[in-house]
This record gives sequence, C-alpha cells and structure tokens, in this order.
Amino acid sequence: MTYRAPVEEVSFFLKSCTSLPLLMEQGLVDLSFDVVDPVLEEAGKFAATAIAPLDQVADKEHCTLKDGAVTTPTGWRDAYQAWAGAGWSSVAAEEEFGGQNLPTSVTSALTEFWNSASPSFGIGGVLTMGAIEALTAHGAHELQHIFLPKMVAGTWTGTMNLTEPQAGSDLAALRAKAVKQDDGTYRIFGTKIFISYGEHDLAENIVHLVLARLPDAPAGTRGISLFLVPKFLVKADGSLGARNDVLAVGVEHKLGLHGSPTCTMAFGEKGEGAIGYLVGEENRGLACMFTMMNNARLAVGIQGVAVAERATQRAFAYARDRKQGKAPGIEGAAPIIAHPDVKRMLLTMRAETDAARAICLKTADALDRSRRLPDPIARAAALAEASVLTPVAKAFSTDIGIEVASTGVQVHGGMGYIEETGAAQHLRDARIFAIYEGTNGIQAIDLVTRKLPLEGGDVVTALIADYREIAEEVGALNAPDFGHAGARLSEAVDALARATRVMLDRGVDEPGKALAGATPYLRLFARAAGGAYLAKAALAAYAERSGGASDPRLSARIALARFFAENLATEAKGLEETVVGGAAGVLEAEAVLALA
Amino acid sequence: MTYRAPVEEVSFFLKSCTSLPLLMEQGLVDLSFDVVDPVLEEAGKFAATAIAPLDQVADKEHCTLKDGAVTTPTGWRDAYQAWAGAGWSSVAAEEEFGGQNLPTSVTSALTEFWNSASPSFGIGGVLTMGAIEALTAHGAHELQHIFLPKMVAGTWTGTMNLTEPQAGSDLAALRAKAVKQDDGTYRIFGTKIFISYGEHDLAENIVHLVLARLPDAPAGTRGISLFLVPKFLVKADGSLGARNDVLAVGVEHKLGLHGSPTCTMAFGEKGEGAIGYLVGEENRGLACMFTMMNNARLAVGIQGVAVAERATQRAFAYARDRKQGKAPGIEGAAPIIAHPDVKRMLLTMRAETDAARAICLKTADALDRSRRLPDPIARAAALAEASVLTPVAKAFSTDIGIEVASTGVQVHGGMGYIEETGAAQHLRDARIFAIYEGTNGIQAIDLVTRKLPLEGGDVVTALIADYREIAEEVGALNAPDFGHAGARLSEAVDALARATRVMLDRGVDEPGKALAGATPYLRLFARAAGGAYLAKAALAAYAERSGGASDPRLSARIALARFFAENLATEAKGLEETVVGGAAGVLEAEAVLALA
Repeated sequence: MTYRAPVEEVSFFLKSCTSLPLLMEQGLVDLSFDVVDPVLEEAGKFAATAIAPLDQVADKEHCTLKDGAVTTPTGWRDAYQAWAGAGWSSVAAEEEFGGQNLPTSVTSALTEFWNSASPSFGIGGVLTMGAIEALTAHGAHELQHIFLPKMVAGTWTGTMNLTEPQAGSDLAALRAKAVKQDDGTYRIFGTKIFISYGEHDLAENIVHLVLARLPDAPAGTRGISLFLVPKFLVKADGSLGARNDVLAVGVEHKLGLHGSPTCTMAFGEKGEGAIGYLVGEENRGLACMFTMMNNARLAVGIQGVAVAERATQRAFAYARDRKQGKAPGIEGAAPIIAHPDVKRMLLTMRAETDAARAICLKTADALDRSRRLPDPIARAAALAEASVLTPVAKAFSTDIGIEVASTGVQVHGGMGYIEETGAAQHLRDARIFAIYEGTNGIQAIDLVTRKLPLEGGDVVTALIADYREIAEEVGALNAPDFGHAGARLSEAVDALARATRVMLDRGVDEPGKALAGATPYLRLFARAAGGAYLAKAALAAYAERSGGASDPRLSARIALARFFAENLATEAKGLEETVVGGAAGVLEAEAVLALA
Repeated sequence: MTYRAPVEEVSFFLKSCTSLPLLMEQGLVDLSFDVVDPVLEEAGKFAATAIAPLDQVADKEHCTLKDGAVTTPTGWRDAYQAWAGAGWSSVAAEEEFGGQNLPTSVTSALTEFWNSASPSFGIGGVLTMGAIEALTAHGAHELQHIFLPKMVAGTWTGTMNLTEPQAGSDLAALRAKAVKQDDGTYRIFGTKIFISYGEHDLAENIVHLVLARLPDAPAGTRGISLFLVPKFLVKADGSLGARNDVLAVGVEHKLGLHGSPTCTMAFGEKGEGAIGYLVGEENRGLACMFTMMNNARLAVGIQGVAVAERATQRAFAYARDRKQGKAPGIEGAAPIIAHPDVKRMLLTMRAETDAARAICLKTADALDRSRRLPDPIARAAALAEASVLTPVAKAFSTDIGIEVASTGVQVHGGMGYIEETGAAQHLRDARIFAIYEGTNGIQAIDLVTRKLPLEGGDVVTALIADYREIAEEVGALNAPDFGHAGARLSEAVDALARATRVMLDRGVDEPGKALAGATPYLRLFARAAGGAYLAKAALAAYAERSGGASDPRLSARIALARFFAENLATEAKGLEETVVGGAAGVLEAEAVLALA
C-alpha cells in the first residue's frame, strides 16, 4: 500500500488555522507558502519513495547486535544517508550551525511524514533534533561548534540517555556517576536502558546526551547534571579520534519499532570512565534535558499522528478494495466502505487523526510565536500556551495513535491479524508512543499540576475562550452541512470549562483528586480542542466554498468536523462527570487494590 | 508471573447473580456448590500449573508446518493430553456421549480459566466444543455415535471451516463445492482459510465441519450445506482408516495466538474430493452452523474476559512490585500502585474485566434456563434473553480484552514494550477476538437489526427494566460506600432506554441510521448492563457484610461497582447522543470517504 503524505491537508491547516501566514506577512518568518508548499511536497515524496518501502522489511529483520556493533535492517543506511544528504536533518536547526531554521509548524509536518513512512526510521531524527535543541540552548560555545554542525548535517546523530533500570518516570532515582577531571572533562560511569539509536551503523559518530550525578551532588532531581558523551572522541581539527568507553551491551526484543535499535548502554565499563563534557551547569541537568524533552514530547505526539495517518490510509484503501455483502445502490458484492458500520470506523480514524494533527500543529504554532514574536510579553504568552498544549498533544495523539491503528486492524477483518498485511505493525509500532518521553499518565499529571495553574489559570482559560468562540461561530452559521456540530461543540467546551474550574480548585485543596482525575481531564481537553480546531478548519473551508472554490476537500473538512462534534466530542460530558465525580471512588478503592 | 484463577469471584457471582442456585434447588441442575466449587478450584489449578507456563514459550516458538503436518510448540501435546485425560474436554457435552452436562454458566468459567492460562491453547477446546454442539443438535444418529464420544473425550478435536478468501463476514459468497455420491456420502472440494487447529499434532483425528455448496444449490446463504469431513476416515469398528483428502497447505504468521495453528485447508486437491457426511439437511447448513457460532460467540467473549483477567493480574503484580516516585505515607520510593493515576488504570482494568465476565455469565445463565426450565414459554423467553445478550457479551468483552491488555502494557511503562515481560503478548493475542466468530461490527448489527426487534422489543425492554431496578436499589440504599453509583447507573439505564426506543423505530424507518449507530449502541448497552451486574453483585456483598461477614472481597465488590458507575458508566449519555444524533453525520460524510 502506497503512502501519500497529506500535503494539502497540512498546508490548508497552516494557512487557515495557524499564525504562520501572519508571521510571514510581518517578516518574522522569512518564507512564503511558495516555498513551504514545495518543501512539504518534496518531503512527502521522499518519505513515500525512499523510506516507506523499507518499513515492513525492517519490521521483519529487526536490528542485530554483535560485539557492541548494531546492524540496522536492509536499506536503512542508504535511506538515512540520502535523507541527510537531501538536507532533511537540518530543517529545524539554527542557521549558525548550518540549519534552515524553518518554523516548527512546518518541521512538525515533516516529522509526521518521516514517521508515517516509518516510525522506526523517524524516531532517530526526532532524537537527534532534540539533542541539537538541548545543545543549542545550553551547550558551551566550543561544544556547540564542534558538535552541532555535524549533527545538523546528519553526519553524526544524537541520543537521550535518561532511563536506568530503577529510574524510569522517576528520574530522581538515577545513579549514573560523573567525576570531574583536572582538564575540565568528566568521566561517566553507569548503565542506561531503552536508548533509542544508542548504537547503529547509519552515521560516523553518535553524540550521547547523558544524565548523571556528581559525587557531591544533592539527592533527587537537583543533583543531576547533563553530559555530552561522544561515541568517538573528536580531535581539535574536528576529525574522529579514539573510541570512547561507551558500549551497547544489549538490544531489546520489542513489540514494535523493530527497525529502531533500543540499546542498553554501558558507560565506563573498562574502568576509567567514558569521557564526557558538561552541558549547562552542574546539577542543572534536568532543566537542560527538559528543553529537549518538551520538544521531543511534541514530536512523539506527532509520531502518534503519523502512524494513525498511515493506518487510516491503509484502512481506506482496503475498505475500497475488499468486497463483502450487499449495499443499497451497488450491483453485486459491495466494497466494505459502503457499509455504515465500516464508514463509522473509517470516519473515526480520519477524524481522530486530523484532530490530533491539528492539536500538534497548534502547539507547534504557539512555539513559533514564542520564538519569533517581537514583543517579549507576547512571546511569554505564546510559550505558556505551548506549555499547556504540549502534554495534550503528546498524550492525546499517542492514545489515538494506538486506537486508530487498532481500528485499522479491525477494518481489515481476519486479514488484519496476518502480519503480512501490514495493519498489525502499526498497532505494534504505535504502542510505545504512549509510554516514552513521559508516559501519558505523566503528561496528564503535568497538565493538571503544572500547566493549568500557569498565570493563575489564565492560560487555559484563554484557550477555552478560543474554543468557545469557534463553537459559537459554527452554531451561529446554522449551515445544514454542519448538522448539530455547533451545539455539540459548545457542550464539550462548557464541560471542559466546568471541569477546569474544579481541577484548578483541586490543585490547591485536593491534590489526590486532581491526580486521580488527570487522565480523563486530558482526554476531555482534547475532545474540546480537537473539535474546535477541526471546526476552525471547516469554517475556513466553508468560507472558501462559499466564495466559489470547488475543491472536494472543502466539503470533506466540513463533514469531518461535523462527524467529530456529533460522534466524538459527545464524550465530553461523561468525561466531565468522571473527572468531577469519579476521583473520590478511585481514591477510596483500596479494598480492590489490595486484592487481585 | 503466576496466574491465579478467579474462583471465588466466579463462585460468588454464580451464587448471588444467576439462576444457578434456583436451578439446583429445583433439581433442574443435578449439582450443588459443594461440587461446583471444587470443580472450579481444580480447573483453576490445572490452568495455572499445566497450561499457563507454556503460554509464553508457545508465543516464541509458533507452530510450524512441514509436508502438511503441523508441529505445535514445546509441551503443547502433553498439556493437551493431560487436559483431556482429566476430563476437561467433556464438561459441556451431553451424558449420552460421555459428557458431564455441566451448566453453561459453570463451563463458561472453565473456558475462561483455560484461556487466561493460554488463549492459543484455549481456542482449540472452544472450537471442539462448538463442533460437538452442532453435531449434537443436527447430526444424524449414526454420525453422532461414531464421532461424538471421541470428540467429547478429547481423543479427536473439531474445527469450523467457514471462511474462504472471498467469503469472510459474507458467507453468501462461499464457493466450496460438495457433490453427492451414490453411497450417500459427499465429495468436498475447495479451499478454506483461517482455520484454527485445522491441523495439529495434539490428537489422533480432526473432525472438520465444513460449509459447502451442492451443484444445484440456490445462490446465497440458502444454498449452503454443512458437512463433517474427518482427517482420517473412521472404520465401522471405530478405528481409524485411510487419510482423507484434506490437507493443511499453509499456516499464517499472525500478530498473536502463535500457539494456535491457523491453517489454510485444501479439500479434494488430489482430484476425487474429500469424503464428507452431511450434517442436518441439504441447504440448511448455515442454520446448523449458527447453533455452533452462537455458542462460540459467547466463548470468544469469554476469551476476551480471560486475557483481560490475565493482563489485569499481571499489571497488579507489577504495580505492587515496581517502585517509582513518592506517595503520601510511604517511606522511600513508592510502589506505583500508590499513585492515583496508576490506581485509575488498575481499577479500570479490573472493573472492565469483571463487568465483561458478569455479562458473559449472565448470557450463559440465560442459556442454562433456556435448556433446563420445564416451562417451554419460560425456556423460549430465556433463549430470547440469551440471544440479545450474546452479541453484547461477544463484542464488549473482546473490545475490553484489547483495551485492558493495552492498559496493561501502559502500567508496565517501558518494560511493557519488551516482549520478555509478557504484557505485550496479551495485547497481540486479544486483538483477534474482536474479529473472529463475527466481527464486533457484525455483532452490533446483529444486536440492532435482529435482537432488539425480538418480541416487538419486549425482550430488551425487560432487560432494561432489570437494570433499572438494580440501579434504583443502589440509589435507595443510599450507603456511603456506593458513592453516587445509584444516580450514575440510573442515568446510564435511562440513556440506554431512550436510545433503544430510537433504535427500535429506526429498524423500521431508517435502517441506514440504525446500522450507523449500532456500534456505539452496543457499547451503551454494555455500559448499563455491566454497571448493573456489578452493582447486583455489590448489593449481595453489601448484604453479606451487613450480616457480619468479613471477607475483604465484599468491600472490594462494592468499591468496584461504585468505580464502574462513577467512572465508566458515565460514558452512557455521550453514547446516547452519538447513537441518536451522530448517525446522520456518518451517512452524510461521503465527501470524506471519497478522499483519503
């Protein structure tokens, strides 16, 4: 099945629902859509032709580890070299280091395309981009100039080394050690697990960003520092020197993402320690890593969108092709897409995918404003908006990544269960996105405990006001094509507003209840936000159509926004009840938890 | 991780929420709980010790096909022989053929235990039991006496051969041919796919039940006949004769259920046809197969419960063991079960699993009444009740099987994605249950188009009245332990009642809308039914506890029913809105369906 990047969809959304046109107009982004559209088009082509065909092969082959060296699947190295060679590794980075400094809303779309083509392939780029960001934000000038140009060019790749067996969600528990040397470098000791692309054969060098503790560091998260540990040391002239004492000692056998080597990394096994360089200040490593993680969280949300998109395309293709049963107006056996229950599945897949993409692109857009607006107050406001949206983007998009992939299997019937078909791989691949870069439970807790209280709740309140305005606009339009979408959206937004007030109060008075309601609250947020963003795009489409435009996609956007509002946003009131009235029962169920 | 069969839970539910005690009292079931409880206990032990340890091994090894012979994984054959040897293959069958004729509510619990231990193992028994039922109901006397005793004893196993490449959900499209011979036998030609245990090395013979068409048969489903086709022909003295011309020519590489060989079967490849015997009448095969399929549908629902139970137990064990972060009142790192968001996940898993089990056991109980009550009118009423509940039991239980298994992966964090942990296998295994024996979409359509209209809607209305009574009893009790469960349940039941009226009208006036709303309607039904049945068990527990009993499970049942009502049954109103108001948007979204 051929992957086709949703170039028109992304472009339409960027033009009609983000601030990118305004940023362009004001010269804050030195680009026009005459450039952006062809970039999207080219990336889509590359993803479809150079990466997508390798995805299923890699799933079958897995990565292998022998004597510390990882061999990636057939075609992987060539594809990576072509990808970096075409400049795709440098789209997000700053120009100073050879980057193209494209807006995050645009690079997010590219991230989606690579990950639709193959999330095993895509995750490598996501992590390198995160490492570049952390180094750009916190690295010393010299370190930046040695490492960033090569990483931006894709000649070297980057990793994030956080997790240890006893320290997953709880980074305070990490034990890796760093000892300062007289020459200003550090020696790193310890074992890290679940390190994506910790070792591979795609690039000349690997730049590990590693969290570790100094001997005299305070306990907990305030005693963690961030280090850069290259696989090969780099000489003064930039050429590669000795092999550093960091070694892949295991590769995991995972449910999915078989093309991405997930390594156990041993630092300092030979005795003297791996040579590392401090990034940022001592004991401030977590703050540095969070720069990287916040952006990586959005990128992982986009991975959810990406696999959902691929699964949706595959299901649509199958449902058009597969004939079973009869349908009104169709001679002989009907394609299953003609059956109402299959229609519901396909529409749900498409609506969830597009809603999640919209949330991710709106998050990226807020990040762009937070970096490019001239007014520091406006920048701060945009950053706060991005901070609220990031956990929603990450958790909702990855939740629906799993759900959509699972529905995709269902659309295929028995064939969906056969690995050769390809539908099942999407479910296997997508399952990790809800876990890595902060589990979705952690995202929900982050939203409720850290993000809602920003500016005394004003940030979230402003977002909700946006959503209400969109819902009211749909309602006021009173156009038959929108069905009852306006009313359903308004109800969803009202439910979110009420639940938000409860959650803001709980944050102060009843933190246990806030935590117990966090996950359904995040889902409720996404129901209102996703519905509103789809409706915003639909309103734009409606205006274009009313102006005489005849692209069939315009009517599709309206029908999809309606479907979402009438069939999925309807969850909102029940979620509100669960958030508000269900938390006590969670906390008072010790009798259940003490049993099975 | 050790599996522990939920013997007390099943026993409590049978005693307090089914008609089994009454049937016993009236001598309609010749058993007491002094017998049933030890049977459950013994079965639980066998499942945990003889089957469960093989499940992960089988997942790794898969089944292999060579020259038409399938080799099952290590230990599989011994376990099967021990299982049949202990009499577990014969629990459901009639005494005339060596069966124990246990009530379906009891055998359903046993089916759960085998399938919790290993669904790859369990599905073999499910299919043989289905074949036994079909043969018992429709087979000629001689055929029954040749085949049933061996099948009941587990010496021979049974299969269902329905699916062909072009005929999955749409059996009308099937093409396998049967030609009558002068001696009264038939010759069968054709290819069947997705045949579970179509070939294996567990037993001496395999009895295939095969759907095929006679040369002069009418087109569509009215031209399908059912045949018995043994792997080895059986001589007059009951010993095995020549190899019949039926051969496994392929074994699928599947997402899960690796221990269960899924075969492509070729009938009559050598030219003269496989020898088969008619079961029932010519051209009435589908009706015969439906006897088998209805019971198999309940059994597949139970498979969903079974894997959900295993995943839940695994997640609870991990969450108690794994320490991350801090929690109030706990020194040092806290087990993650202490974190409210993890509690929510675990409670959801437990509540969905127990609700699904309750629905399945209530379905089984209705089947028992339909067979054992003396009054034919009462029997017919019970059968109608079972008919309504069967698609709910199948679809809801298998949907939550997937959801619960997926949440189980999530509870494990990164470890959940590593195959060695075992959590991911449950998700892979469970995924097929929503597809085979009639996809869950087909179940929803069956519920809405065939089951709701039974007795002009009276059957479903009576069930809803039961649910309302339970909800009202909880509300009237006004006990603090139940929180707001009474109110939430009443709202869920009211939502179901309103949606049911709409669906009954649509069945007549707007069949397209009925189909488009079928899946959310089934979910809504399960929300009310599951909540009510859990509440019924909780009310019984409350009464026992008020009477002085101190088993901590009593309080757990109350807390769980409350959690379900306040956190999951809250979905009901939104589902009602989707069913009632969302269907039009599904049918009017052609613009979306014409695109991606």
